[in-house]
Amino acid sequence: MKLYSQQLDTYCAAVEHALPSYLPAPKDGEKTVCDAMAYACEAGGKRLRPVLLCAFAALAGGDVAAAMPYACAIEMIHSYSLVHDDMPCMDNSPLRRGKPSVHAKFGEDMALLCGDALLNRAFETVLSADTAVAADRRLRASFVLARAAGIRGMIGGQTIDLENEGKAIELPLLEELHRKKTGALITAACEMGAILGGGDESLVAAAREYGKSVGLCFQLVDDILDVTATAEELGKPVGGDEQNEKNTYVSLLGLSETRRLAAAQTDNAIAALDGIDGADDLKALATVLLSRTL
Amino acid sequence: MKLYSQQLDTYCAAVEHALPSYLPAPKDGEKTVCDAMAYACEAGGKRLRPVLLCAFAALAGGDVAAAMPYACAIEMIHSYSLVHDDMPCMDNSPLRRGKPSVHAKFGEDMALLCGDALLNRAFETVLSADTAVAADRRLRASFVLARAAGIRGMIGGQTIDLENEGKAIELPLLEELHRKKTGALITAACEMGAILGGGDESLVAAAREYGKSVGLCFQLVDDILDVTATAEELGKPVGGDEQNEKNTYVSLLGLSETRRLAAAQTDNAIAALDGIDGADDLKALATVLLSRTL
Repeated sequence: MKLYSQQLDTYCAAVEHALPSYLPAPKDGEKTVCDAMAYACEAGGKRLRPVLLCAFAALAGGDVAAAMPYACAIEMIHSYSLVHDDMPCMDNSPLRRGKPSVHAKFGEDMALLCGDALLNRAFETVLSADTAVAADRRLRASFVLARAAGIRGMIGGQTIDLENEGKAIELPLLEELHRKKTGALITAACEMGAILGGGDESLVAAAREYGKSVGLCFQLVDDILDVTATAEELGKPVGGDEQNEKNTYVSLLGLSETRRLAAAQTDNAIAALDGIDGADDLKALATVLLSRTL
Repeated sequence: MKLYSQQLDTYCAAVEHALPSYLPAPKDGEKTVCDAMAYACEAGGKRLRPVLLCAFAALAGGDVAAAMPYACAIEMIHSYSLVHDDMPCMDNSPLRRGKPSVHAKFGEDMALLCGDALLNRAFETVLSADTAVAADRRLRASFVLARAAGIRGMIGGQTIDLENEGKAIELPLLEELHRKKTGALITAACEMGAILGGGDESLVAAAREYGKSVGLCFQLVDDILDVTATAEELGKPVGGDEQNEKNTYVSLLGLSETRRLAAAQTDNAIAALDGIDGADDLKALATVLLSRTL
């Protein structure tokens, strides 16, 4: 299925093109980790976060090229989180997107360093970014990224997830888990785009609201797909959540209620952009993300 | 033995006091990782990097309090690197400073997340720092930190180290390894302090030169202590380098030549501060670091 409109596809292609240029060139002595970093960031993912960042930068009237280092940085952070998540001491996943995961291909030690290096590289990239964006907006967007990726964001969500494996948790904690683990970085992508594009506070708030709703919807659909998709579609074994005794919306509420909640989040996302010119692609994306099959 | 002068001791005490305030307060659902982060940053280390940062900020005529978030951030990055280095897939060290290492106490999964969270928290801290330092100096100091911690700095050194375990390497690569693995962050501490304190380019260059020499000396002495110290002094088993087939100066050049090189680096460090007023404490520190026994 096609995820992106023609316009969003151009952002996705621009990210695919730019991302390797922000990664370190392989160098004697450091080659394995550099190769692992490139492998972890290779095409195959949806590039959802950087595409959202570019789309909101454009929606705010900004220059998408000036936002590109930030778009690539957020994809590096997403990629590092997958590398570390797949490791034996975490989810122990030998496959990612139908290919060997980083530790399976490069070894556990290199996977650990690769993830560390990608997280660090994201901040090197935003801090060295030589763009037309004003310094205050650069600092603000970089802080939004750091906060969303950290203990009160993505890492916090991973922690809640791990601490509650095998325990039945209540809906509010499950929502917090999902909002942090997946939602925080998706929300940050939208918010950073609006900030870097020069948007006013009402656009930044709308971007944040859209991101929150799309982010939660995204994780709800992930939970659904882990049960309903085939291994080929998913690029990894199905039922992994159940096997790892993960708390999911499907295990707590069942499939049909999870589907209803996901649809409600899509409605919220679309409503958040109500009355904003040029937001049709982003509204359409919210709808497509609800019905995605991979 | 006493490492610091009275003045440097006040910086060390200020760092001990400030560091916990930059770490996340334990929160339901995220408590284990927050506890692990605090444990990893607990007293016991020398706080060398933040003390150097404070000392160079003062030497540059700046306000040490304004540099404190950066001092704490660099200690977080040093601490995360130890947490990940100790993990079973890396050095597999059950002890650190005489206490159980983070993975031994909190589990491997929490150690992985704890390290990630500390690295991320360092950037949250510098990016949110509400200090009197001008924005351009904040951005510059933050970039120096990111670069030194990354694939061309500390992580690059760890990579070279891992890739060459069990292989005999030549002196130039061993020096690059040490300059990156230990030296980069120590050099960055000095450079960041000079930048944040408002120093001119000649002071920033002197700080960098001092940091490079002290950083290499520090690792040379580490290599020596791994062979000569007792386990009680070291807080971990001695001979770990040999057991892990690490490349060290001692294994390549022997003890006395390594001691000679360390002394030469101390001379370099002192010479780098020649003619700079108020640098006596830093010169004395270089000498003490050469003769440290832990």
